[in-house]
Amino acid sequence: MADAPPLRGPSLLTVPAGDNRERKVCPDCGFVAYENPKIVVGAVCRWEERILLCRRAIDPRTGYWTLPAGYLELNEATSAGAAREAFEEARAEIAIDGLLAVYDIPRISQVQLIYRAHLVTPMIAPGPESLEVRLFAWDEIPWQDLAFPSVRWALDHYRDCLATGDCTTRRNPA
Amino acid sequence: MADAPPLRGPSLLTVPAGDNRERKVCPDCGFVAYENPKIVVGAVCRWEERILLCRRAIDPRTGYWTLPAGYLELNEATSAGAAREAFEEARAEIAIDGLLAVYDIPRISQVQLIYRAHLVTPMIAPGPESLEVRLFAWDEIPWQDLAFPSVRWALDHYRDCLATGDCTTRRNPA
Repeated sequence: MADAPPLRGPSLLTVPAGDNRERKVCPDCGFVAYENPKIVVGAVCRWEERILLCRRAIDPRTGYWTLPAGYLELNEATSAGAAREAFEEARAEIAIDGLLAVYDIPRISQVQLIYRAHLVTPMIAPGPESLEVRLFAWDEIPWQDLAFPSVRWALDHYRDCLATGDCTTRRNPA
Repeated sequence: MADAPPLRGPSLLTVPAGDNRERKVCPDCGFVAYENPKIVVGAVCRWEERILLCRRAIDPRTGYWTLPAGYLELNEATSAGAAREAFEEARAEIAIDGLLAVYDIPRISQVQLIYRAHLVTPMIAPGPESLEVRLFAWDEIPWQDLAFPSVRWALDHYRDCLATGDCTTRRNPA
């Protein structure tokens, strides 16, 4: 007897009944894989006059520097997610000071919530997704080797908040 | 010949290889249905001294009043999503004035981004998800018949912004 054909998973792009957009549907079992934008949570973390950055051990942008940040998990508050990511990526214990910025990145279907935070202790160490972690003075930050544009935005916004005292929540720069 | 058993879709809760949390996996084809928190976008929309509310035609909370709001779509900016929802639910054309609030609702894995907006014209009409839409003066708002706690939060935060001129982005009330 011939083997059954491999099952296909949600591989068919079609408009499900009662919907008005194309979704990926499994032609074998009918499961509809609704895809939604994702929430990224992270923090600009300060120890005295230094800022925590992590050098990425994973794609995309392996080897470049980023803020500790990642996907929010189910049933997690956004500030708790930012603190979890700081621990996972830099073994850093942080205290949240406020919501620095909300960035829309529709090209990659992300909304980023970036907090202001401070380190509770200066002890940091790379987690599995980081090659190295470091506290940078402002004039040491590797501006040419940042992983993503929004890392630059957040650092600029945080520096502006420290300089002016206006720490209202920022949006994408113009 | 007996019918083949029905296919099951992502119904098995297990930790996929290389992951550290349980996910729903299809035992037939191996598809992993990653579930992520969802982003809800909406707006408090004003025409002169009146606020737009929609009476829900769908569960949950059919018959109760809500702000125009719904899930952000892929590749959509959050302000564009809020404007789309105002049109879909109330046929309202709105202009965004700023980000009123970011609410964490981890119990139901939602992050809500609620904008301040004004109606470009006072013409409104119920869309398919609304039984009725209406512009309410503040003293007419059906406070006892609001659909969700965050509707109350957003109305209170917007009223406070109008009264004080402080329209910085709000978070969950204490």
